[in-house]
Amino acid sequence: MLTLPESVLIEDEALRDGLQNEQRLFSVAEKRELVAAIAEAGVRRIQVGSFVSPKWAPQMANTDELFAVLPARPGLVYSALVLNRAGLDRALAAGVKHLSISVSASETHSRKNANKSVDEALADILPTIERALAEGIAVRAGVQSALGCGYEGAIDPRQVLRIARLFRDAGAREINIADTAGLADPQLVHRVVTTLRDDLGADVTLSLHLHDTRGLGLANMLAGLQAGVTVFDAAVGGLGGCPFIPAATGNIATEDAVFALGRMGVATGVDWMKLRPVALRLAELLGRKLPGRMAYIDGGPDGARA
Amino acid sequence: MLTLPESVLIEDEALRDGLQNEQRLFSVAEKRELVAAIAEAGVRRIQVGSFVSPKWAPQMANTDELFAVLPARPGLVYSALVLNRAGLDRALAAGVKHLSISVSASETHSRKNANKSVDEALADILPTIERALAEGIAVRAGVQSALGCGYEGAIDPRQVLRIARLFRDAGAREINIADTAGLADPQLVHRVVTTLRDDLGADVTLSLHLHDTRGLGLANMLAGLQAGVTVFDAAVGGLGGCPFIPAATGNIATEDAVFALGRMGVATGVDWMKLRPVALRLAELLGRKLPGRMAYIDGGPDGARA
Repeated sequence: MLTLPESVLIEDEALRDGLQNEQRLFSVAEKRELVAAIAEAGVRRIQVGSFVSPKWAPQMANTDELFAVLPARPGLVYSALVLNRAGLDRALAAGVKHLSISVSASETHSRKNANKSVDEALADILPTIERALAEGIAVRAGVQSALGCGYEGAIDPRQVLRIARLFRDAGAREINIADTAGLADPQLVHRVVTTLRDDLGADVTLSLHLHDTRGLGLANMLAGLQAGVTVFDAAVGGLGGCPFIPAATGNIATEDAVFALGRMGVATGVDWMKLRPVALRLAELLGRKLPGRMAYIDGGPDGARA
Repeated sequence: MLTLPESVLIEDEALRDGLQNEQRLFSVAEKRELVAAIAEAGVRRIQVGSFVSPKWAPQMANTDELFAVLPARPGLVYSALVLNRAGLDRALAAGVKHLSISVSASETHSRKNANKSVDEALADILPTIERALAEGIAVRAGVQSALGCGYEGAIDPRQVLRIARLFRDAGAREINIADTAGLADPQLVHRVVTTLRDDLGADVTLSLHLHDTRGLGLANMLAGLQAGVTVFDAAVGGLGGCPFIPAATGNIATEDAVFALGRMGVATGVDWMKLRPVALRLAELLGRKLPGRMAYIDGGPDGARA
């Protein structure tokens, strides 16, 4: 038997990481309907948007408005992404109770994405984390491009560890390791997670954000599980990445991850069958087939439904 | 660190399992060119066809002719699939030195595929294995639908073990566990492989045949590696399965598997970059994009080539 956790938490990011690069703008009503369906399937944390400049991410421009219409639901956390103090101000005004705040471990990615060096981004982000915590907001601090960078290639795990320590010292109790471009392999996932876990101690929960660029998304999830990770990001339909490059680079599909976890005896509280219509609805709205698999497969006699 | 073998053998099956359901018939010259390119990339075992009825698999009808034109190459094994005595006779006439001989672990699959019960198929296959071995042919004996059946669902691992023991007793020294429909999960792969390995002993090599139907192909490979498997089937481009069903059900792509193995420090002797043009050539001949990933991805700055 492979040694795996008994249960994990799934954070769905279809509405944020999934949609942020899509040209077709989704209305608040459409987003609300999708969030409700994802919640109905049993997902307990949903990242529904980000508070970044509408100039760079027009799809995210209605995130404030969306928060105003999301119904409270016991046991369900709505989260959003923030990359600087200005974003935190908007999140506070919108009444957000859980935030993802992140920097990139790659100098080049940081400069291209945030127009700052890694240290400049940290100088802005660390007080932002502290302020959010002081306001009573739950914060998850993320390291983008932690397992490889599309510009630079390999990322030194010591850089990831250095950032993670600063996050912990700023008070973050969940640290997200993001394979932003989908470049990780299972051995690397296992090594980086183990290194961070051993160094940061049991007070810090490590979560993984995986993309399926090279078909290794679920293999990387398996390695993360074996290293003790109990929180995974995913996106319904395997949405995400740029639709204009030939190889799909989406997030791991929530329905595929949940199905696989269930098969391996790892509880998620999510009914993957209820995510299928959500994935098919997203595919319909976007006008193309999505990369996730289980939305397109019949349950069949092999007990896929179980 | 995940504990993985130092090296593995890759058997490419693009020409057999990959092409067998394709409508476009490939000429001997085209197949020969593809085999040569796969060999040039460093693959040491290539399953190039099968000796089955041309009525059921017209694509395989020129397998005899193909064997006559394949150049001998040191360290390279050309293999073929045989499902009964008639096939063995054709293979012997063609001078084949390595055969895959298999039965299904699923009663329903066996009846649909071979028009025989599992025990009827075994009664035919076991003497065929013995005769092939007596003729000096290397034999790998395979259990189809060993990890799930598209008709029946779950397959009892005791049924797989029963067949594997009969294969071993007939003299087979490599036993192939095939996830014919791509229904396995990593925990099941690990459990079945471990059960068989513990029972059959070290004289028998276990190999795995994996499909990527649910996006778990490489995760299942990872579980197999952790259970000590050192021989994996794959197909360039991720070819295989029926092109007329919406979810791709191809084999794990050889270039993706080789890339991932290299990244994890598992040697294959194969240069995945040399498989990219083969995958693109297959895509061109078939007139569609194939499901494998690495053929469509630039090496980029992340050292994907390394």
